[in-house]
Amino acid sequence: MAYISTDEAYSLAETILKQHGFSDRQTRALTDTVVAGQRDECHSHGLYRLFNCVSTLNAGKVVADAEPTVHEPSSAIVRVDANGGFSQLAFQAGLPVLNEKAKRHGIAALAINRCVHFSALWVEIEAITELGLVGLACNPSHAWVAPEGGSKPLFGTNPLAFGWPRPNDEFPFIFDFATSAVARGDIELHRREQRAIPEGWGINAEGQPSTDPEAVLNGAMLPFGGHKGSALAAMIELIAGPLINDLTSEESLAYDDGSNASPYHGELIIAMDPKHFMAGNDEACFARAETLFQGMLDQGARLPSQRRYEARERSRNDGIHVPDTLYHDLKQLL
Amino acid sequence: MAYISTDEAYSLAETILKQHGFSDRQTRALTDTVVAGQRDECHSHGLYRLFNCVSTLNAGKVVADAEPTVHEPSSAIVRVDANGGFSQLAFQAGLPVLNEKAKRHGIAALAINRCVHFSALWVEIEAITELGLVGLACNPSHAWVAPEGGSKPLFGTNPLAFGWPRPNDEFPFIFDFATSAVARGDIELHRREQRAIPEGWGINAEGQPSTDPEAVLNGAMLPFGGHKGSALAAMIELIAGPLINDLTSEESLAYDDGSNASPYHGELIIAMDPKHFMAGNDEACFARAETLFQGMLDQGARLPSQRRYEARERSRNDGIHVPDTLYHDLKQLL
Repeated sequence: MAYISTDEAYSLAETILKQHGFSDRQTRALTDTVVAGQRDECHSHGLYRLFNCVSTLNAGKVVADAEPTVHEPSSAIVRVDANGGFSQLAFQAGLPVLNEKAKRHGIAALAINRCVHFSALWVEIEAITELGLVGLACNPSHAWVAPEGGSKPLFGTNPLAFGWPRPNDEFPFIFDFATSAVARGDIELHRREQRAIPEGWGINAEGQPSTDPEAVLNGAMLPFGGHKGSALAAMIELIAGPLINDLTSEESLAYDDGSNASPYHGELIIAMDPKHFMAGNDEACFARAETLFQGMLDQGARLPSQRRYEARERSRNDGIHVPDTLYHDLKQLL
Repeated sequence: MAYISTDEAYSLAETILKQHGFSDRQTRALTDTVVAGQRDECHSHGLYRLFNCVSTLNAGKVVADAEPTVHEPSSAIVRVDANGGFSQLAFQAGLPVLNEKAKRHGIAALAINRCVHFSALWVEIEAITELGLVGLACNPSHAWVAPEGGSKPLFGTNPLAFGWPRPNDEFPFIFDFATSAVARGDIELHRREQRAIPEGWGINAEGQPSTDPEAVLNGAMLPFGGHKGSALAAMIELIAGPLINDLTSEESLAYDDGSNASPYHGELIIAMDPKHFMAGNDEACFARAETLFQGMLDQGARLPSQRRYEARERSRNDGIHVPDTLYHDLKQLL
């Protein structure tokens, strides 16, 4: 098992991305998120994703030197056209404008269009909480999930993320979850290991419940939480798709056309400034949120992201853990 | 079984509320929502709620003639102080300002404070979609639900509602669900009928899974969808509680102090104007949303609220259905 410093992780990622033709600005934005994922032991969004960056580029499905363009369609909306690049740089281009608008008007939205997407949303939500804002983010993906009561893929795994700043704590309250019962990667992992998946994860091509990972990957995944999770997935299709003049998961999958690249679609982020909402009682309001968190911890419930923050502290002390095979394979990209 | 006209339903509700001391304006706003609930055969939020209105008033937990006051803490936020009245009149007072702000800035928020709450959120969301806006609403309730991994009540049943306007369809796309596994009323119904509840609805006072409705009512309900539903419930506590300088579900239950009145707390509503988001492609974007809905229907999935809209058509044709016992009991309130 290799433990590498943050600097080494940055350097490794940057070298790989630049060598394959990504521009300096795209490289830096991508590196920020994959190193953050690796640091937090969120391996599915860590350095491992560099393979996807390269294969998506090789498939001609991402613009390696895209420069996002920033538009302001209204006083409280900022729209960033990623121009076919990965989402990360587009987010970074839009964030200062989102911040300014949220702080001026109390609430604001950032719509990212025409981006290639693989980023975990918590990275972006954390950047929003660092500005003292409450954030909500979501995006479609590829049509892999059947609506509750249906039998065919229609929705994406459609993640939803939320963040609450904690002025007196290093770590914000953040959750980031797929509205599918599990991540698609979990089913792929079971297939590779030839293990049955639990009931409730998916259905086969005939629409019947199945525990065969292969059958579910060729059938449909299921939303979490029955009709409620399904409704949330539909909401995300709408507000991060047609609302912002961008693709649904079905349209994104059609665009992919079998290339198996990272999905291409939009993303919606809403930011709210507590200073405008809390009616001058900021300190008391933030303290009452802490009472809620303590009420969770006192009865043995975890705060979301707690595991990630514990991993971050480990990485800070021991270096960033990179499994040997991953490290070896990454070197092959050089 | 009685079938009464909409006029009769209005007249019955108004007479009861006025006779018990509610002001004309409070009465009209309350009547609108309980008749809408009865009309849509959403019985838990129909005329039946008039008993709660009266008992909450008798318990001294609602101001019968409260006049909401409207504040504008920032350009895109409207805050309505219900001044201890029911939420409905406060919502009606805030809606025109929310509409104007959303249409001017693209996104806006309405925070309702210090309201007594029993309204189904879909009534409000539908009013928002009728203005051509996309809406999202949520509120805490009373601390009845344990967080995932915990064992004690902390969260409310915290409903979340969303609406999408459909320019060429009479009925908008709307969902409105509790973030608890089921409504508290469903467990109370099982208790009355001395039936066991399904696993997953709740735990007893020792934190153990239970199918005994009495034990769960004295223990804790569970969120829907495990840690994801639990995270959503926490988000609603935060954004419709401390964010808007109002009570969490735990604080609301403490305020109730055993009187069993309707909960007293706040509510947050976010409205977005598609015209500002859709980059001039409104028609195509709304059409693509319809493709999504058709994709759901084509595979046998329902649209949320479909059952309610079917009931509404029945009520339009046959009159509003009021079960005999309910009709009889309501007459006793006169």
